[in-house]
Amino acid sequence: MSAGRRSDTALLIIDVINDLDFPGGEKVLPWALRMVERLGPFAARMRRAGVPVIYVNDNFGYWRSNFRDTYAHCTRKGSRGRNVARALKPEPDDYFILKPKHSAFFATSLVPLLEHLGTRKLILAGLATNLCIFFSAHDAHMHEYQLTVLSDCCAAESDDDHDLALSQLQRFLHVRVCRSDEVHLSAKRRRVSAKRPHATKQAPRKKAAPSTS
Amino acid sequence: MSAGRRSDTALLIIDVINDLDFPGGEKVLPWALRMVERLGPFAARMRRAGVPVIYVNDNFGYWRSNFRDTYAHCTRKGSRGRNVARALKPEPDDYFILKPKHSAFFATSLVPLLEHLGTRKLILAGLATNLCIFFSAHDAHMHEYQLTVLSDCCAAESDDDHDLALSQLQRFLHVRVCRSDEVHLSAKRRRVSAKRPHATKQAPRKKAAPSTS
Amino acid sequence: MSAGRRSDTALLIIDVINDLDFPGGEKVLPWALRMVERLGPFAARMRRAGVPVIYVNDNFGYWRSNFRDTYAHCTRKGSRGRNVARALKPEPDDYFILKPKHSAFFATSLVPLLEHLGTRKLILAGLATNLCIFFSAHDAHMHEYQLTVLSDCCAAESDDDHDLALSQLQRFLHVRVCRSDEVHLSAKRRRVSAKRPHATKQAPRKKAAPSTS
Amino acid sequence: MSAGRRSDTALLIIDVINDLDFPGGEKVLPWALRMVERLGPFAARMRRAGVPVIYVNDNFGYWRSNFRDTYAHCTRKGSRGRNVARALKPEPDDYFILKPKHSAFFATSLVPLLEHLGTRKLILAGLATNLCIFFSAHDAHMHEYQLTVLSDCCAAESDDDHDLALSQLQRFLHVRVCRSDEVHLSAKRRRVSAKRPHATKQAPRKKAAPSTS
Repeated sequence: MSAGRRSDTALLIIDVINDLDFPGGEKVLPWALRMVERLGPFAARMRRAGVPVIYVNDNFGYWRSNFRDTYAHCTRKGSRGRNVARALKPEPDDYFILKPKHSAFFATSLVPLLEHLGTRKLILAGLATNLCIFFSAHDAHMHEYQLTVLSDCCAAESDDDHDLALSQLQRFLHVRVCRSDEVHLSAKRRRVSAKRPHATKQAPRKKAAPSTS
Repeated sequence: MSAGRRSDTALLIIDVINDLDFPGGEKVLPWALRMVERLGPFAARMRRAGVPVIYVNDNFGYWRSNFRDTYAHCTRKGSRGRNVARALKPEPDDYFILKPKHSAFFATSLVPLLEHLGTRKLILAGLATNLCIFFSAHDAHMHEYQLTVLSDCCAAESDDDHDLALSQLQRFLHVRVCRSDEVHLSAKRRRVSAKRPHATKQAPRKKAAPSTS
Repeated sequence: MSAGRRSDTALLIIDVINDLDFPGGEKVLPWALRMVERLGPFAARMRRAGVPVIYVNDNFGYWRSNFRDTYAHCTRKGSRGRNVARALKPEPDDYFILKPKHSAFFATSLVPLLEHLGTRKLILAGLATNLCIFFSAHDAHMHEYQLTVLSDCCAAESDDDHDLALSQLQRFLHVRVCRSDEVHLSAKRRRVSAKRPHATKQAPRKKAAPSTS
Repeated sequence: MSAGRRSDTALLIIDVINDLDFPGGEKVLPWALRMVERLGPFAARMRRAGVPVIYVNDNFGYWRSNFRDTYAHCTRKGSRGRNVARALKPEPDDYFILKPKHSAFFATSLVPLLEHLGTRKLILAGLATNLCIFFSAHDAHMHEYQLTVLSDCCAAESDDDHDLALSQLQRFLHVRVCRSDEVHLSAKRRRVSAKRPHATKQAPRKKAAPSTS
């Protein structure tokens, strides 16, 4: 329960503890399940490298600052997002912040936490590319954090929404967009670098209509 | 786990879930134990009247948005604040917000929660009168909330610090300061009114050196 | 120099006092000149109806809180945005807020001003549809303002960027998008209503390549 | 009109452009006039040392982001604060920020400006010690700026209010309080240091009832 080592880079995982119980949630699910295959190992790699993993998650209107309850609620039997949330279960040293609105920065303690950690570089992942990732990227940009969005560790209702959001972040805000296997942390300074920034699709489907099981 | 009824008044309880493990904490303890005798029944009265009770509590540097863990930590065997925290244990319908700094408003979701509840009138209670109550009152004033501070439901290291802080809030910000038994909620609109606003001392001690047991 | 009457609706005009001296500014210019033909009369109509007109304008890195200097700078001889800024010159009763970043809400006094005016409904216009209008609409949405964006009173570098931004605001945030001649203020409560919300193009060009003179 | 050199230290001058047209303003005036004798030369010394001077000033309810108008209004014939404001007239390279409430940080662009300047150390001066200086010091503390308050360059309605506010900042927030002639900037890093931090009175009066002319 220590306050954590300092690190110039942090991984923000947005809204993956989610019962996907909203209109369109059924469309997000297959993409989210593919996302999990990339994001789970990537988060593990970050933890091993000493990069703080910060879950910033919607409070879904409950306002009780209890991430554990949120987790229990979203992994209950019958929750559409159960498998996503279980696959991305936070580790004991991860940080949790509950947010009341789309952006991870709006009315939360994210900025003081990042200052506490000495973090200036953010890697963004999670749901949904064109909403909470997008809003959070906007605010991160205004706060002048150096930003990388992982194209294969975000998901949206459709490929089009996903690609469009990423291409807008690249074109208008010059955000670095790359795949998770292109992130290399320098040993000394834990820098984030990507060989070639480019918008890539959601984690590729193996068949046209992804099953959700 | 519902989002709660709307109410134009809310009770904010600041930093009472606290292990008092800081320099001067041993001086706060006896005053806090007296405070509990007033604040416990007052909070119960507010709950019966349908007034939301919002715990806004320091995260003590842990940043993990788990009020339950904070409660467990502060009520552990040997915690100096154990009896205070246990006597003021939150009820299931209460709200919890973890704050990273002195003010209940700084980098928290308090404003969106109050907007969600339709609240414009705040009753402040808790620890310490001259620090977190004081900072929170300042911010409430700038946000133009109508403010009542309960003189017998706050505590500080000493009577002087307590009285001075309350008298400054009255003189400079025209905050209403009254005792908890002077708060009357109108049935219809749950208004807060006090017969005669005045700064009163900390809950009176029966003997000069209050015991902490 | 009075503080102004209260009004539940306000018109926000974003970044039109602008020398357009940035990469792509030459592409924005022709669209901005068309925008002016709609926005000038619309702002005049709002003023006559008693709706506050609030210019929220980039400080362009100068940080000196002098809107007058910004205006002088942007209307100097040789400024690319001279004709746009002159055509939309603020009236004495208009409000000015300088913003340091994209969003009209980020690190500005816009929220206290709107609370001071009693405003809950915002009409957005100005530059550029896909950047500062977009960011400001995001923040207005999180602050729970009721939002209308005027499709014929915003402009961007291209029709595509403009249309895309508006369609995203409609699809993802359910923002009302309409033309300025579709805004009708009810006499009594100055409500904003639009017959049929739909995303429309930038003010239509009469020829393919609009001249800038 | 350049954006300014970076500096780890900045001088914040609060609310000195002020017509003192409020209840108690006549009591502040003589203390403010003594303050000017110290603050004027100190600000000049800071400018020579390359330390940014930032006026953060109440907008007095006008919301028009025109510091020049505020200055003209407060130095008009008959303004009680005319001589104070004229003696502390901003220089062309100074920064101006209008604030809507007590704290220099509340709903203003002060934080982005300080980040732009690379500033982490603030020297506070101005009016009134127990209100806007006090609120601003609170917020500076929560934002983790290193803080020095100049005891002889602040003023309040009375010596008691002034001394009390400074002693509280020292006791509860461990803010450094010193006289302006105790501030020494190291050549290399423009550090602020004070030989011996202590709360001192307002600039000493030469006679019991200072005249205001």
